[in-house]
Amino acid sequence: MAAASGEAVKNKQVLFKDYVTGFPKESDMAVVESTIQLKVPEGSSEILLKNLYLSCDPYMRSRMSKNFTAHPSFVPGSPLTGFGVARVLESGNPNFKKGEFVWGLTGWEEYSLISSNQMLFKIEHADVPLSYYTGLLGMPGMTAYAGFHEVASPKKGEKVFISAASGAVGQLVGQFAKLAGCYVVGSAGSKEKVDLLKNKFGFDDAFNYKEEQDLNVALKRCFPDGIDIYYENVGGKLLDAVLLNMKMNGRIPVCGMISQYNLDQHEGVTNLVHIIYKQIRIQGFTVNEYFQLYPKFLGFVLPHIKEGKIVYVEDKAEGLENGPAALVGLYNGCNVGKQVVVVAHE
Amino acid sequence: MAAASGEAVKNKQVLFKDYVTGFPKESDMAVVESTIQLKVPEGSSEILLKNLYLSCDPYMRSRMSKNFTAHPSFVPGSPLTGFGVARVLESGNPNFKKGEFVWGLTGWEEYSLISSNQMLFKIEHADVPLSYYTGLLGMPGMTAYAGFHEVASPKKGEKVFISAASGAVGQLVGQFAKLAGCYVVGSAGSKEKVDLLKNKFGFDDAFNYKEEQDLNVALKRCFPDGIDIYYENVGGKLLDAVLLNMKMNGRIPVCGMISQYNLDQHEGVTNLVHIIYKQIRIQGFTVNEYFQLYPKFLGFVLPHIKEGKIVYVEDKAEGLENGPAALVGLYNGCNVGKQVVVVAHE
Repeated sequence: MAAASGEAVKNKQVLFKDYVTGFPKESDMAVVESTIQLKVPEGSSEILLKNLYLSCDPYMRSRMSKNFTAHPSFVPGSPLTGFGVARVLESGNPNFKKGEFVWGLTGWEEYSLISSNQMLFKIEHADVPLSYYTGLLGMPGMTAYAGFHEVASPKKGEKVFISAASGAVGQLVGQFAKLAGCYVVGSAGSKEKVDLLKNKFGFDDAFNYKEEQDLNVALKRCFPDGIDIYYENVGGKLLDAVLLNMKMNGRIPVCGMISQYNLDQHEGVTNLVHIIYKQIRIQGFTVNEYFQLYPKFLGFVLPHIKEGKIVYVEDKAEGLENGPAALVGLYNGCNVGKQVVVVAHE
Repeated sequence: MAAASGEAVKNKQVLFKDYVTGFPKESDMAVVESTIQLKVPEGSSEILLKNLYLSCDPYMRSRMSKNFTAHPSFVPGSPLTGFGVARVLESGNPNFKKGEFVWGLTGWEEYSLISSNQMLFKIEHADVPLSYYTGLLGMPGMTAYAGFHEVASPKKGEKVFISAASGAVGQLVGQFAKLAGCYVVGSAGSKEKVDLLKNKFGFDDAFNYKEEQDLNVALKRCFPDGIDIYYENVGGKLLDAVLLNMKMNGRIPVCGMISQYNLDQHEGVTNLVHIIYKQIRIQGFTVNEYFQLYPKFLGFVLPHIKEGKIVYVEDKAEGLENGPAALVGLYNGCNVGKQVVVVAHE
């Protein structure tokens, strides 16, 4: 049902209730229905979006905490915000026109009136699934690309290990590493995910970390000569085992530490002395410093998608009302592939 | 008593007895007296050295372990080897001439016949104390310079924290950081060392980590706005507290982790998640990759020494027979300043 401009319509929203400690729960969010005037106020440069897909990303946990440094906290009583794909319904900004598809920061609601200085990209290539702009062609894709190519500086033949390897970022790092001529192993938390890594994403090897008695033994089995690059998504015990298996001058781009975000007491990592023994570089990064590379990234990745050389697996939750469960599920490893919430089909 | 060329003379040595686990003890070494022919064999390119000063360096602990990756292990039954200052008695290598002073890798003994492909530098500037070539003008000096200027990339006005700050490397990092226009705080393990930091080396502030109830509180007191650069020499609990206090885009050059070398079970570091929250770079390094900068380093540091703008404190043990105690003392924080063993006065 298309909404006409200016009409007041119902606007389903996912509200953030209050700051979270420990694991987030569905009840930390509330699905409500408000109304919105489908109009950009006279003279305003705001943009009115109809949201199509919303992205569930691990970093969103940090926005649920109070006074967090790296990202602004969510506002209790207001909708969550995050990356999404949308169609422009009306625009006070001449750079975005009615009917265009965009991706960038939007609200967890059916319609969002967003400020013109929000991060928003026009979608120039709509001959791929639009939901890919929450993943492969959006922030996670850029994160995989920047962390691997810019932070880790891979060389052909190097040995690469990726944790949370079937996730939104990991599955891409693995494929980028294969394209770069590296040997690639991933870890994930179920047989289904491990099968995906080996059979769909072309990893050389993979293991289910939940079924390994000793992570150090698992890594030694996969990397008898050690690891050059560890693309770090999880932290904790796995990082500790990896440190024992790094090669000289190894690099660890730290994309995330999802195993640690919800713990009151973080796991102790005991093998840091290998940083000096092996002259390891550990580099925390976020994608924000790399968005200027987005056109270069698209030029690299779009042909590979069209030739079927890069594939992408998404886990789609249908309906905004299923958004809280999808987001909470991320921290329990429930998703298989990139977790997306489908708000509306176009 | 000068030894004539070709003469067989007594040669006191410090032998490495066997591989060490846990803290090294004096009894892991033995002081013995052998004899040596003061002559370079006919046709050999070896160099015969009379050792003057030997350097006690924290990394030497790793050479006492078996099958260690980063450095070759000491050979049981043979003298320890390490950095030292010596005079050339005879030379089969045309680049080094009889009577010249040199610094580089030598043996823990009175006289050493060393291979021509050992790392050895001619001492061109002898108008400073020769023992400085085990410290300020040698490997520790280059380590301080490379780790601070090359690895940490300091900017004027940045906040710098240094652990083991009165040691061979730390006292120099602090002075280099002051010369670079940084705010500098150091930690050390006694009142005497803290006084040195504040009153002799010009640190802006300093604290005795043994007297602080809570290292996090101590760091917050010294760095209310956080730390840009942590020059890491110790590891463990102090690193954990530092991670809580790092600023965005902070850098941690890892020069060493002396608190961890002798522990069977390393301390767990629990705050690594700040690497991603604050996009921290942690970089293990050794000086070996940076020796090509040595001439540049000398050009920088020699004028400062002559103008009294860089000072250096040494802790000298007199006599090779006191070498084992001096080396073991490093790991108990007994030394005040750079630990040197005086083998002979020239």
